[in-house]
Amino acid sequence: MANSMYDFGMIGLGVMGRNLLLNMADHGFAVIGFDKDTEKAQALESAATAGTRVKGVVALAEMISRLERPRRVMMLVPAGQPVDDVLESLKPLLEPGDIVIDGGNSHYTDTLRRVTAMKAAGFHFMGVGVSGGEQGARTGPSIMPGGDQEAYTHVKPMLEAISAKVNGEPCVAYLGKGAAGHYVKMVHNGIEYAIMQLISESYRLLKSAGLDNDQLHQVYKEWNEGPMQSFLLEITADIFLQNDDKSGLRLIDLISDKAGSKGTGKWTSQDAMDLAVPVTIIDTAVSMRTISAYKEERVQASKLYKEPHLPIPAETKLFISQVKEALQFATIMCYAQGMAMLHTASSALDMDIPLPEAVKVWRGGCIIRSALLGTFYTALKDAPELPNLLLNNTVAGLISGKEHNMRAVVVQAAQAGLPAAGFMAALSYFDAYRSEKLPTNLVQAQRDYFGAHTYQRIDMPGSFHTTWQHHS
Amino acid sequence: MANSMYDFGMIGLGVMGRNLLLNMADHGFAVIGFDKDTEKAQALESAATAGTRVKGVVALAEMISRLERPRRVMMLVPAGQPVDDVLESLKPLLEPGDIVIDGGNSHYTDTLRRVTAMKAAGFHFMGVGVSGGEQGARTGPSIMPGGDQEAYTHVKPMLEAISAKVNGEPCVAYLGKGAAGHYVKMVHNGIEYAIMQLISESYRLLKSAGLDNDQLHQVYKEWNEGPMQSFLLEITADIFLQNDDKSGLRLIDLISDKAGSKGTGKWTSQDAMDLAVPVTIIDTAVSMRTISAYKEERVQASKLYKEPHLPIPAETKLFISQVKEALQFATIMCYAQGMAMLHTASSALDMDIPLPEAVKVWRGGCIIRSALLGTFYTALKDAPELPNLLLNNTVAGLISGKEHNMRAVVVQAAQAGLPAAGFMAALSYFDAYRSEKLPTNLVQAQRDYFGAHTYQRIDMPGSFHTTWQHHS
Repeated sequence: MANSMYDFGMIGLGVMGRNLLLNMADHGFAVIGFDKDTEKAQALESAATAGTRVKGVVALAEMISRLERPRRVMMLVPAGQPVDDVLESLKPLLEPGDIVIDGGNSHYTDTLRRVTAMKAAGFHFMGVGVSGGEQGARTGPSIMPGGDQEAYTHVKPMLEAISAKVNGEPCVAYLGKGAAGHYVKMVHNGIEYAIMQLISESYRLLKSAGLDNDQLHQVYKEWNEGPMQSFLLEITADIFLQNDDKSGLRLIDLISDKAGSKGTGKWTSQDAMDLAVPVTIIDTAVSMRTISAYKEERVQASKLYKEPHLPIPAETKLFISQVKEALQFATIMCYAQGMAMLHTASSALDMDIPLPEAVKVWRGGCIIRSALLGTFYTALKDAPELPNLLLNNTVAGLISGKEHNMRAVVVQAAQAGLPAAGFMAALSYFDAYRSEKLPTNLVQAQRDYFGAHTYQRIDMPGSFHTTWQHHS
Repeated sequence: MANSMYDFGMIGLGVMGRNLLLNMADHGFAVIGFDKDTEKAQALESAATAGTRVKGVVALAEMISRLERPRRVMMLVPAGQPVDDVLESLKPLLEPGDIVIDGGNSHYTDTLRRVTAMKAAGFHFMGVGVSGGEQGARTGPSIMPGGDQEAYTHVKPMLEAISAKVNGEPCVAYLGKGAAGHYVKMVHNGIEYAIMQLISESYRLLKSAGLDNDQLHQVYKEWNEGPMQSFLLEITADIFLQNDDKSGLRLIDLISDKAGSKGTGKWTSQDAMDLAVPVTIIDTAVSMRTISAYKEERVQASKLYKEPHLPIPAETKLFISQVKEALQFATIMCYAQGMAMLHTASSALDMDIPLPEAVKVWRGGCIIRSALLGTFYTALKDAPELPNLLLNNTVAGLISGKEHNMRAVVVQAAQAGLPAAGFMAALSYFDAYRSEKLPTNLVQAQRDYFGAHTYQRIDMPGSFHTTWQHHS
């Protein structure tokens, strides 16, 4: 009977669940997957590499009964109620000490609640972020586990085996207590939103300068081959070459500009506001996806408000190099905002997130992997409590040389009327962050004037209220 | 005994509660206030205008027993648990049909919960937003009632009497079902945050151009005397003349730039994200208040990153006129974002908010009152379902002439390294909103490439997924 037992079980055999399981099987583990959908259960088996031990079943009880103990079960089902439903159906089938992993995009507060409830029921529960999309899941994702550290030791070998590798190191590490895994994944997605928004703005700017799809491909390909190398630039280069099967036109020109979202960017922004950490480029990316859906209003508005019709003034080659450096500058701001958020969340939410490990895990497999993360990893290894990447000297060196072109791009976008909300948010964040003195003393004066909210002074401690005089 | 009975009771005799009650007494109503603090109860009576009927008590039961029926009771206590505590202590004292009003800054979801709970207990409960600060409460605030429409008829005479008046019309009106009153107030505060941020940025820009406090006073005073007239500009002008009692210096220069907040701006941003309405200037204002608190990091960063040291290039008089028009342009964007949010919330949250009435109520008494609201009121009376003020022809006329200077100011701020996050958010919102085509088609292509999230096409309906080709 021993060889009819399996090392790891998966609930939900959608493309992500199936691919993670096949990946695990390729690394020598015996795996079993459950899905109510017979086709999906069969598809798992037929996609297995020859010689691997892969089984698909349509009864949850069967899967659980065929797992080695402590049982290791991951679920990849839609966030929200489906996760709770699965947990309820699992409880009567599990035994004390069994380990249940939620590998989906659950909100971290749900994960915290489930950790507590499952612990009370005698089980281990972990929230684990997985990034890399379909292909990453199959060949090596970035994996962000958090929560029960004892449980982690039981799944560590499998997760390390299937994860992406950078310099031989697995892109998985224990990332902290409670819901830390899902939290780090949420912030990862926030950064992802922000960088995608910036790339889309750079596309608009370059297109306005007259570049066609072949030239756009070439530009992003070249950028991806240098110090800006990143997964998102790589796929962007690809995208401009993709032809539409039917028309033979480039597909990018046929895709609607209404952008969707699954909500994780929004969660990042909302939670950052609760933590009082500014993540302005993420906020902007969320808003720009939102505004993209207001198609009808935008069409109406486009008739009321004419474009300035100013040309992009710079010579094309110069302009491309300006946009390149602006994109790099702004992308660094995205990571800085995200890491500052993790820094604050780590203590504020009692997660003890090891920041260098988070960055290390992101270096490979995930959507925001990029050459920059190596620099950040070095910076954070030296100073794990660094509150903001911008305070690191190496990062400062990277930024400073690009600041001039960042400004030049914002100037040209503003003049030409090209929406560059992300670039502008990146620059204004930088300029605010590096300002010893902000004009918010006026905000405090106003608040005290109309609401007696008091203010602090620069020359003495304490809170002060003034009866402000009206001058007519 | 009849003349020992009172028309209206107030729980919480802080400055807002006391002033609202004294205002009511001045309009002929007999009022009674309760506060556990004996001093506050006495202060109410001693501040009353001669000949008015004002009583302060330190026992809640006494106050309730001396109110005409149905009893009309308002509470002005800190948001959160204190409101629930007051409701619990009130319940045994009230009789069916009595009316309880929460006049504080409660989160609208709390208000919704309380409306239901109080209704089940047989009482009327209303969430009512009040704006105007101390002075407004005493002499005429803007009042935003929502919820139980039957209950409103019982308090309408008092609220109309004490409210600010514009063209003889009271700045109070029934603003919708459920928690509509607190919702409208929340959005009011979001707009307030945004406009305050913009004014603070204009201050920084003008100061950089060499204006001293006297000149700043003069500029804001002049702006306030023209079509930009607003309460916030009025008090801003005052602020620059205020001297510090001790040093004789101008107080504004001694106030710390760490700005506080009570959270209502944050609530607006977070809720707008849930509703999928972009309110980017409000988001930015929230973030800039947040970043102002990172004083220590900013000081560190200011040493790592030098200011560009580019002068503000325009001639001073020209620059002042540019900043003036940019501020007006950007302020219109703030109102547009806030009203778009109310438009969506009205149906999405089943509140049936009459938008023209909301704007009408804001014309006087409140912090965001301004001459612009008259224009918006006219626009919305003609088209109460207008999804965005920017789609109104009159508003378009107001904006278009100022667009050039809006761009000029962003350009100069970007070049000079002056943080202008609010101005940039306003311009990029405008440029995105008036764009028939956004570059978010690339975002959709990327999402489909790495996550099979599908996309829509411009040439046919449906959802599509492509197996994207990688080109090395």
